[in-house]
Amino acid sequence: MPQQFKRLKLDLVKPVPSDYEISRNQVPKHISDVASEAGIVAAELEPYGSYKAKVKLDVLDRLQDKKDGKYVLVAGITPTPLGEGKSTTTVGLAQAIGAVLGKTCFANVRQPSMGPTFGVKGGAAGGGYSQVIPMDEFNMHITGDIHAVGMANNLVAAALDTRMFHEATQTDVGLFKRLCPVKKDGTRDVPVGLTYRAKKLGLDLAKIDEWTPEQVSKYVRLDVDPKTITWKRVLDLNDRSLREVTINEAPTEKGLIRKTGFDITVASEVMAILALSTSLKDMRERFGKIVVASSKAGEPITCEDLGVAGAITAIMKDAIKPNLMQTLEGTPVFVHAGPFANISIGASSILADKMALKLAGTSASFTPEEVREKQGYVITEAGFDFTMGGERFLNIKCRTSGLKPDVIVIVATVRALKVHGGGAEVKAGAPLPFEYTSENVEMLAKGCANLQKHIQNAKQYGVDVIVAINKMSSDTDAEHDIIKKASLEAGATDAIVSNHWEEGGEGAKDLAEGVIKCANKEYPTQDVNESFHTLYSLEGSIEDKIETIAKVMYGAGSVSFSDVAKEKIKEYTAQGFDNLPICIAKTQYSLSHDAKLKGVPTGFEFPIKDIKASIGAGYLYALADKIMTIPGLATKCGFMNVEVNEKGEIEGLF
Amino acid sequence: MPQQFKRLKLDLVKPVPSDYEISRNQVPKHISDVASEAGIVAAELEPYGSYKAKVKLDVLDRLQDKKDGKYVLVAGITPTPLGEGKSTTTVGLAQAIGAVLGKTCFANVRQPSMGPTFGVKGGAAGGGYSQVIPMDEFNMHITGDIHAVGMANNLVAAALDTRMFHEATQTDVGLFKRLCPVKKDGTRDVPVGLTYRAKKLGLDLAKIDEWTPEQVSKYVRLDVDPKTITWKRVLDLNDRSLREVTINEAPTEKGLIRKTGFDITVASEVMAILALSTSLKDMRERFGKIVVASSKAGEPITCEDLGVAGAITAIMKDAIKPNLMQTLEGTPVFVHAGPFANISIGASSILADKMALKLAGTSASFTPEEVREKQGYVITEAGFDFTMGGERFLNIKCRTSGLKPDVIVIVATVRALKVHGGGAEVKAGAPLPFEYTSENVEMLAKGCANLQKHIQNAKQYGVDVIVAINKMSSDTDAEHDIIKKASLEAGATDAIVSNHWEEGGEGAKDLAEGVIKCANKEYPTQDVNESFHTLYSLEGSIEDKIETIAKVMYGAGSVSFSDVAKEKIKEYTAQGFDNLPICIAKTQYSLSHDAKLKGVPTGFEFPIKDIKASIGAGYLYALADKIMTIPGLATKCGFMNVEVNEKGEIEGLF
Repeated sequence: MPQQFKRLKLDLVKPVPSDYEISRNQVPKHISDVASEAGIVAAELEPYGSYKAKVKLDVLDRLQDKKDGKYVLVAGITPTPLGEGKSTTTVGLAQAIGAVLGKTCFANVRQPSMGPTFGVKGGAAGGGYSQVIPMDEFNMHITGDIHAVGMANNLVAAALDTRMFHEATQTDVGLFKRLCPVKKDGTRDVPVGLTYRAKKLGLDLAKIDEWTPEQVSKYVRLDVDPKTITWKRVLDLNDRSLREVTINEAPTEKGLIRKTGFDITVASEVMAILALSTSLKDMRERFGKIVVASSKAGEPITCEDLGVAGAITAIMKDAIKPNLMQTLEGTPVFVHAGPFANISIGASSILADKMALKLAGTSASFTPEEVREKQGYVITEAGFDFTMGGERFLNIKCRTSGLKPDVIVIVATVRALKVHGGGAEVKAGAPLPFEYTSENVEMLAKGCANLQKHIQNAKQYGVDVIVAINKMSSDTDAEHDIIKKASLEAGATDAIVSNHWEEGGEGAKDLAEGVIKCANKEYPTQDVNESFHTLYSLEGSIEDKIETIAKVMYGAGSVSFSDVAKEKIKEYTAQGFDNLPICIAKTQYSLSHDAKLKGVPTGFEFPIKDIKASIGAGYLYALADKIMTIPGLATKCGFMNVEVNEKGEIEGLF
Repeated sequence: MPQQFKRLKLDLVKPVPSDYEISRNQVPKHISDVASEAGIVAAELEPYGSYKAKVKLDVLDRLQDKKDGKYVLVAGITPTPLGEGKSTTTVGLAQAIGAVLGKTCFANVRQPSMGPTFGVKGGAAGGGYSQVIPMDEFNMHITGDIHAVGMANNLVAAALDTRMFHEATQTDVGLFKRLCPVKKDGTRDVPVGLTYRAKKLGLDLAKIDEWTPEQVSKYVRLDVDPKTITWKRVLDLNDRSLREVTINEAPTEKGLIRKTGFDITVASEVMAILALSTSLKDMRERFGKIVVASSKAGEPITCEDLGVAGAITAIMKDAIKPNLMQTLEGTPVFVHAGPFANISIGASSILADKMALKLAGTSASFTPEEVREKQGYVITEAGFDFTMGGERFLNIKCRTSGLKPDVIVIVATVRALKVHGGGAEVKAGAPLPFEYTSENVEMLAKGCANLQKHIQNAKQYGVDVIVAINKMSSDTDAEHDIIKKASLEAGATDAIVSNHWEEGGEGAKDLAEGVIKCANKEYPTQDVNESFHTLYSLEGSIEDKIETIAKVMYGAGSVSFSDVAKEKIKEYTAQGFDNLPICIAKTQYSLSHDAKLKGVPTGFEFPIKDIKASIGAGYLYALADKIMTIPGLATKCGFMNVEVNEKGEIEGLF
C-alpha cells in the first residue's frame, strides 16, 4: 500500500523572499516517502542522497495494465526575456491539484543546464512558493544525467577524431590488423562494436578471412569527409570562448587540424535521444543511428560505424531512469532530460511522462465515476511558447510516444501581452517601463492577439485550451477581464487567474479546478468529440513539412530556402532521411523569425538558412536564423554571488 | 550498534574469468548494510543507488576522540606497462584482513578516470577475485565526483576567458558599473565573490564611492597576461585532439584568439585539492588560492580575484564526501578523489583516510591489549612506484594530513624484476617474451636491486616495509625465495607471497598476518623506536628540495635546470611560493627520468625542464619530461567491446 500523502505546509511571507531562502526554509520529505506516496515500491527506487532518487523503468512493466492519468501540457505565449512563469505555473498547478485538492499529481520538468544557473538567467526550479526543492540540488548535478550526456557525446567526438587520425596514418592492412587482431587460435578478435558495420556492408564475419582487399578497405576505412562533420563536443557551461575552435594542433596529431566548436551539453543529440527514447533498447538503437558526418562518397557515418554506440549506452544506462524530487508542498516531481529548446524539442522525457501517467492512472476495471474520482494528473511542460515548444511537443514528442494531452494550458502575463500591444522593450536587469507597472487596457487588448493566435494554433490539434493568467502585483482586475474575454473569443475553454508564485498551491486552486474540469470535458462549452491529431504527415517532402509549420503555425506567407538548405534537403532526401518530423529553430521572441515583430505578424517570408539532422533523435532541424548553441557569461555573473556557508549550505543561487 | 560483518562467499573458478564476469556473478550487499557494519550511522549515509553511498563528514566529528586504526600504505616497485597489481593487492589485502581474519578493514582507493576505462588500460577496480564491486559502477560515474571536478575546473576557465573578453572591450567605468551596479537605494551591489579582491587590494568596500579612478581600475581590471595562463580546460576522456587547440575563434570573440589545451579531468588542480583538503572550509580556502595566471605586472591572479571560488565550492560540496563501496568479499571500500599520478600526488583523499582511520579506530580508554584485539586497518594506495607515489604520499599528503603510515607494503612481481634484470621489453597487448614465462633466477636476482632501492627509500622515512610478492602462474618457488632474500637484505621486515588475484582474501592471508604483525611491531627484527619523518623541510629553496628528492630518492648525481625552470623558480620565489613541497613529474618506468634506464641507475644528471604551480593544492610540480596530460585512444579501443545486454547490464568492461 502506498503511504498517505503528507502535505508540506507553506509559511507564506510577504514580500516573497528569494527562491533559495524559500527552498532552504522548507524541510523536504525523505525521497523514499515521496516515492511511496506516489505508488513507487521500494525495489523500484534508487535514492541519491535524501531528496533525490532514480526510479527504475520496471514501474512501467508493473503498471502496464493501468489506464493512464490525465496528461496536461503547459505552454506559453510569445514571452519577454524575463520569462512568463511557465515552470512556476507547472509547479504551482501541480501543488494545487496534489496538495490542495488531494489528487495524485506529478509535475514533469526538464533538468536545467548548469550554464545558465551560473550565468545571468539563474535556476529553473520554478520560483517563489511554487518550486522544486531543494532548489540547489535541482539546479546543480541532480543525479548526474547531464554529466552522463556530456561524457557520451564527447566519447563519440573522441572516437571520431581518433579514427580519422588512425585512418590517415595507417594502411588498410594495418588498420585491419589492429581493429580485428588475429588471436592465438588464428581467428580474428572482432570487437562487438565493429560487428554492426560488417552487417551494414553485407560482409559475413564468419568468412572474415576470405574478404577481398576492397571489402577489408570498405570495412576498416570510414573515410570521413572532414567538411561534413556535424558532431561537436559539449560542456555544461556558458563558455563563449569555445564557440569556434581549432583542434588537433599538437605535434602528435600530425597536422590534421580542423575547425570545430563546442555546444552546451543540453544541445547534444544525446540529450534529445534521452528525452525521446521509449525504452533502454530504443535508446541503444537511436544511439546507433546517430549520424556524425558523411564519408567522402556521401554515405552517412553513424555511431554504429564507429563502434561506440554500445559504450555510450553503458554511460547512459542510469541516466535513462527518471529522477524523482518534490515540490515545496511535497508533491512528486519527475525531473528528466533537458534538451535545448533552441534547436531541440525543449521538453522533458517521454519515459518520465509515461511513468507518471501510469502512477497517476487507474485500474482498467474502474467505472467512469471511479476513474473521475481516483485518477491523477501529470503536468508536463514544453519550452518556449506554444507555437514553438507546443508544436514540437505535439508533432515530435507525442508522435514518438503515442501519448496525447487532455488539456493544453497556455500561460499568459499582462506584461508580455502589453509588449505585443506596442509596449516598450523589456530587458532583463533593467527597470520596467511605466506601461508595465500601471493599468493600460488599450495596449493590453491589442496585445491579446498574440495569445489568441497561440490558442487557435493549439486548438488545431484537437485539444482543449485553458489560459492561465500568471498574476503579477501590478495587474488590475480590468486587465485580467480583457485577457479572459480574448481567450474565450479565440476558443479557449476558460481563462483563469493564478497567484501561485505568491501563494503556492492555494493560489492556483481555481486554475487547478478548471484544468480538472476541462480534462474531464465538464465545461458546457466543450466539444466532447474533439480528437487529437498531428499537424502534418511524415510522408510529405521536407519543404512541405516546413511550409506547413511556417504558414499554419507562424503565420508566414511563404518560405524561402537558402542554397545551403536546398543542398541539405537534397542530401538528406538521398540518404532517406526525408520522412522525419521537423524541428524549426528560430527566435522565441516573435511568432515569426524576427524577434522585433511582436503581436501577430502575418504574410512574412520565412527564411530557412540551413537544415541539420538528428537522426538518432529522429528529426531534422531547420534553422531560420543563426542559433547560438553555447551561451556566454556576462560581465557580472550568477557565479559571483554563490558561496557555501558554514553549515555547508549553498547561498546565492537564484 | 553496528551490524555484524557478513562475508560474501567467493565461488572460485579456474581459469579466472574476466573481471566483469566475476563482479557480475557476485551479489553485493546493500550499501546501507556495508555502512552499518563499518560503524557508519544511518544519518551519516547518503545512498546513491543500492551499492554506492556518500558518507557525510559528520563522522569525523562524532568519532574525533577515537584513537586511529592502523594505516597501511601500498606502493610498488618500478613497474612494467602491464602494471604489477598494486590496486589488486590493496583490495586483496583488505579482503584478507577484513573477511578472512575478521578485523575491521577499509581499502581506500582512487576513483578511476573514465578515459582509460574506454581506452586501452581498462578499469581500475582491482582484478580477478580481488575487486571493488560492482566493477561497472566503480569504473563509470560512481557518484559523479569527477564530473563535479570537471564542471568546477571549466567554470574557472570560462570565468577567466570571459573576464579577459569583457576587460578587453570595456572601460574601467563600464566594468565598474557592470560588476558593482548601483542599486535603487543608491548603494552599489557588490557580489560576495568580488569582496575578496577588495580586501586583497586593501580597498574599503564601505567607502566604495570614494575610491579613486586608479583604485577602481585596479579593482575591476585583473589585467591578465595571456602568455602566463596556466589554467586549462578538462574532459574525462582520452581525447588527443584537444591536447593543443586555439579558442575564441568565433566572430563574437572579437579576435581575442589564444592557444590553450585540454587535460584529462583527473589532472585538474581541483582534483588535487579534493584529495588534499581536510575540511569543507579548507577546500574553500584552497579554491580561493588557485593561481590561474599572472597579471601583466607579474602578480598572481587567483580564483578569488575572479570571484569564482564560492561557486566552485558549491559545485564540489557533495564531492567532498567520501564514497563507500565494497570488495568482492563484502568489506568496506572508500573510493575518493583520483588525482593524476603523472603530475599530481596519485593518491586518494585525506578525508577518506581520516574517516576510515576513525571508523577502524578504538576507544581512547582501551588497554594496549584491547587495542591490539579491536583495532582495524586502513589500506591505502599510492600511484606509480614507491619512489614517486610513495614519496609524494609521505612528503605531500602526510605532511598535509598529519597522518603517518604504520607499514609500507611494496608490491613486487617476478615479471617486473626480470625487466630490471635485463629482460626484453614488455608491452601491453603483445605476447610476453620467453624469460617471463619460465624460471630465470639470474635475471631475477639482478633485477631485485630495483626492489631493494625502493625498500631502502621507504625505510628512510622511519616506516617498516613488508614486500608483497604478487604471485603469477609462471612464478617458481626458487624465484620467490630470491625476492624474499633480497628484500630482507635491503631492510624489509618481511616478504610474503600473495595469491589474491586467483583466490581473493584467502590468497592474501599470509600477507595480511604479516602486515598486522608489522603494524603492531611484533616482528623480532623490528626496531620499535623508528619514527616517521619527511624527507625534506619546506624551508629550503625550490632547487634544494628538488635536488634532495632527485639525489636521495632517484639516485641522481646532479640536477640541471632549464632556463624556463630557472625563470619559474625566480618567479615563484618572488611570489612567495617557494615554501611549498615539490611534486616531481617524470616517467614511472625508471627510477630516473629515462624510461630506458632499468634496474637502479645512478649518477645521472636529472633534468628539470619546467616548473608549474598548484598553489591551491599546495605544491609546485617540476617536470623532468614533457608529460602527457591527456592520453589518446588507440585504433582498437576498450569502448568497442562495451555493450548493454537485454537485462540492462554492462558487458565488455575490463
